[in-house]
Amino acid sequence: MFILKHFRIKKYQILRNVRYIQTKSIKNILDLKEHELSDSEVRIIGWVKSFRDQKEIKFIHLNDGTDGRNLQLVCLAENFPNKDNFSNISNSISFNTSLEVHGKVVKSTHKLQNYDLQVTELKIIGPCNPLEYPFKQKIKQTLESIRPHIHLRSHVDQFADIMKFRSELVSSIHNFFYQNNFTQVHTPIITSNNCEGGCETFQVTLNDYDRGLEIIKKDSINQMDELNSRHFFSKPVYLTASAQLHLETMTTSLGNVYTLSPTFRAEKSMTRHHLAEFYMLEAEMIDMNSLDQILDLTENFLKQVSLKTYDVFDKNLLHLILNKNKPKTSGLEYIEKITNTFNSKKFVRITYQEALDILNKLLNTKKYSKLIKKKIEFGEDMNKEQEKLLVEYFQDTPVFVTKYPKSIKPFYMRQSEDNEKLVENFDLLAPHVGEIIGGSLREHRIDLLNDAIKNQDLEPQVFDLYLETKKFGAMRMGGWGLGLERFMQFLINIENIRDVSSFPRSLYNCKM
Amino acid sequence: MFILKHFRIKKYQILRNVRYIQTKSIKNILDLKEHELSDSEVRIIGWVKSFRDQKEIKFIHLNDGTDGRNLQLVCLAENFPNKDNFSNISNSISFNTSLEVHGKVVKSTHKLQNYDLQVTELKIIGPCNPLEYPFKQKIKQTLESIRPHIHLRSHVDQFADIMKFRSELVSSIHNFFYQNNFTQVHTPIITSNNCEGGCETFQVTLNDYDRGLEIIKKDSINQMDELNSRHFFSKPVYLTASAQLHLETMTTSLGNVYTLSPTFRAEKSMTRHHLAEFYMLEAEMIDMNSLDQILDLTENFLKQVSLKTYDVFDKNLLHLILNKNKPKTSGLEYIEKITNTFNSKKFVRITYQEALDILNKLLNTKKYSKLIKKKIEFGEDMNKEQEKLLVEYFQDTPVFVTKYPKSIKPFYMRQSEDNEKLVENFDLLAPHVGEIIGGSLREHRIDLLNDAIKNQDLEPQVFDLYLETKKFGAMRMGGWGLGLERFMQFLINIENIRDVSSFPRSLYNCKM
Repeated sequence: MFILKHFRIKKYQILRNVRYIQTKSIKNILDLKEHELSDSEVRIIGWVKSFRDQKEIKFIHLNDGTDGRNLQLVCLAENFPNKDNFSNISNSISFNTSLEVHGKVVKSTHKLQNYDLQVTELKIIGPCNPLEYPFKQKIKQTLESIRPHIHLRSHVDQFADIMKFRSELVSSIHNFFYQNNFTQVHTPIITSNNCEGGCETFQVTLNDYDRGLEIIKKDSINQMDELNSRHFFSKPVYLTASAQLHLETMTTSLGNVYTLSPTFRAEKSMTRHHLAEFYMLEAEMIDMNSLDQILDLTENFLKQVSLKTYDVFDKNLLHLILNKNKPKTSGLEYIEKITNTFNSKKFVRITYQEALDILNKLLNTKKYSKLIKKKIEFGEDMNKEQEKLLVEYFQDTPVFVTKYPKSIKPFYMRQSEDNEKLVENFDLLAPHVGEIIGGSLREHRIDLLNDAIKNQDLEPQVFDLYLETKKFGAMRMGGWGLGLERFMQFLINIENIRDVSSFPRSLYNCKM
Repeated sequence: MFILKHFRIKKYQILRNVRYIQTKSIKNILDLKEHELSDSEVRIIGWVKSFRDQKEIKFIHLNDGTDGRNLQLVCLAENFPNKDNFSNISNSISFNTSLEVHGKVVKSTHKLQNYDLQVTELKIIGPCNPLEYPFKQKIKQTLESIRPHIHLRSHVDQFADIMKFRSELVSSIHNFFYQNNFTQVHTPIITSNNCEGGCETFQVTLNDYDRGLEIIKKDSINQMDELNSRHFFSKPVYLTASAQLHLETMTTSLGNVYTLSPTFRAEKSMTRHHLAEFYMLEAEMIDMNSLDQILDLTENFLKQVSLKTYDVFDKNLLHLILNKNKPKTSGLEYIEKITNTFNSKKFVRITYQEALDILNKLLNTKKYSKLIKKKIEFGEDMNKEQEKLLVEYFQDTPVFVTKYPKSIKPFYMRQSEDNEKLVENFDLLAPHVGEIIGGSLREHRIDLLNDAIKNQDLEPQVFDLYLETKKFGAMRMGGWGLGLERFMQFLINIENIRDVSSFPRSLYNCKM
């Protein structure tokens, strides 16, 4: 009862013929049943996706974003009483012009579509000068070629469809947590916590940073003090690199919580796997007592959300995303392979030590000598190429790598019962992209937390409030963080992370 | 098929009696049907909400965040073979201690609850020293008194329940847009756009701002240049104050879009209505042709989402949020009043000019002389008190005020057809909190946009990419932004905006 069922259907009184004309979405029209066809006129709006011009007839393919399919508009000279209006169509319409069109839905004579719109009136809303417009009707764009036009990318179907997939995926994620009784928490972006994980962060200052530099240049210590005192929050603050510590504090009385929130890294890297601003899904669950327990949950989450998203997402659009500039089958084969793996296989679970043993075994094989140049010693981290190799080794099944050395992991991870050099953590490695999730059981014993902070040369006062929460009814917990963009790259086989983000930010790159 | 139905029910092999013990949530137990009661032992975890100690019997109320109700634990001496264990309970348990408990579900003898748990085993997970713990069992906390303990606030039921309400509201919002075929877009936080709306923004710099000041203090122009060149994004960037311009660029091929995203204002105000970081819900809809059309949509959205959230949110929790420290009925009366208004009344729609006329008419009345000291002239903005007065004037019905002077509104609002001094915009004023939504039809005519930018002394180059999108298939659009926290304040009658945000940030205030 709460849903606005006919949200997209609006009514207009057109004085010309004194009757109501329904505004239909293109999806409405393409999904019509045959018995629903009527003589009444409809009104649609949309963007021209292609245009074919003949003397007595003009064909336009129009799209309004409601469907992967276009609607074919048929403009017949005989339907335009004013001949000038008809011939003007050719001059004023081009690729991506936006239109308001009135006409009648009729059965199509073309076998590729069910219905055409026979146009009786056509108005330009926004022209599109083909000489200035960077995209051309007859030249197929690649994701790479449209990337510099960050403000116009959604005009191109493949990118628009990627954005739609992201929206569907996000919706599946929220549904999963809602149905499993998690509370969604909006954790803060601005934080006084500089770097629990040892990563580079951004600082947030007042808007007069550059003016401040000018003041100081003129060399006055008083002015310098004045500038220092200008901290809006009365101390230096940063953009969050992870919401985990905040989430942990929210579990008492709330139980399981999650957040899907922007996170920031000022790493000076320009790879196709890194962004300076990205979305991280972080979940924190109470009463977590063993690695297998959290691994089971994580595996279930990933499989369910992925399969659900594939299932409900428009198959035509999936086709478009995957097969642009590629042979017809490769993309769908990719999805089918993942779907099969997710439906039938359990993810691989190995320890960090076992992972090293496998990689070091491959050390002297010709095929991998470029990736593994020397033996990886206990205490060293694996690089992205080595992570991908591990997944390959297990025939592209996702791999949980568990129990890393305590020395290379954050202080809040729970120390293993059986080996105090290890922590109860995991990384999940996915085919093609490597790590997409990192998680662990959390240390709730305050003495061990204090030791870990000391051993890692961190400043305890940065974590004073977090540590205090462990003094009052601490709970055994576990949680993880998933990089949303990397997950997308994996799910729809997109090589460059910039192509799954609406406005990607990276080193030297922040347009608009 | 995709839902992990029994997500919270986990199995443990307990060696003591070699059988499986189910971990139950407290909600599971309280919702049991009588025929489902069995003799098998269950395991639960949770936090102590109250504790009553007698010689042969001890009562504990436990909560795990899954339900507004607590489960009563009954510890009978006879069930503890080891007498020391039993008497130790008194020494080690206090308000907010976290426990793992084993026992049997039995019918309660107390009429206020259906079931008790008869405890056979009880383990402390995290102790809670009552001498250090800031909250006491027998002293009722107010939202104001717990505010300084930002990291512990979720321990207090009323605050935890506000967070749950927020989660439910956010879920209703996402569902509304999903069901109406909007695409959710994650718009960027870091932007090169400084201030389209004329508000104060934060700047984002590299992490060495303070060190940079030190370098400069030592007075070297070379070092100064070096620091200037350290812009991570090769230019100054800011925290977003609104995602609207970004959203507008995404509508082509995507159609209707929305985002629920953090936004930032560096306003040096400390009122109970302002945060430096808050969530804004922004929707952008294509083919918007009249103010009434967008007002209808907005009104429908607000009513549906509000009523739906009230409807599905746990009534016990709503009670707790509203009635803490207040007479039993006042809170629910508040909800009932809003619900009735939303169900039966159409929101008021008046123009800015009509609003001024009403306020100026009240100018000389004794009652309002403090709020309206002098006549408000055309071109002046109303203040918050005057906005609230307007809503009062219309018997607490929300009021749309439309068609403001162009001179006091952002450049992107569409100029009125009938009066070029006005724009086709609206503010929605709600009882008690004033403005919660601001929106407008958007100007899609590039010459009018350029004029407005010039007239408002803005720098056109800041908007170059946005303006370029209007050159290529521009669409008539309209949209609005809703302040999520203010909406919450209105829906559950919370006076201070800091009490509906997990980690509120404001002037001089950024803890954790």
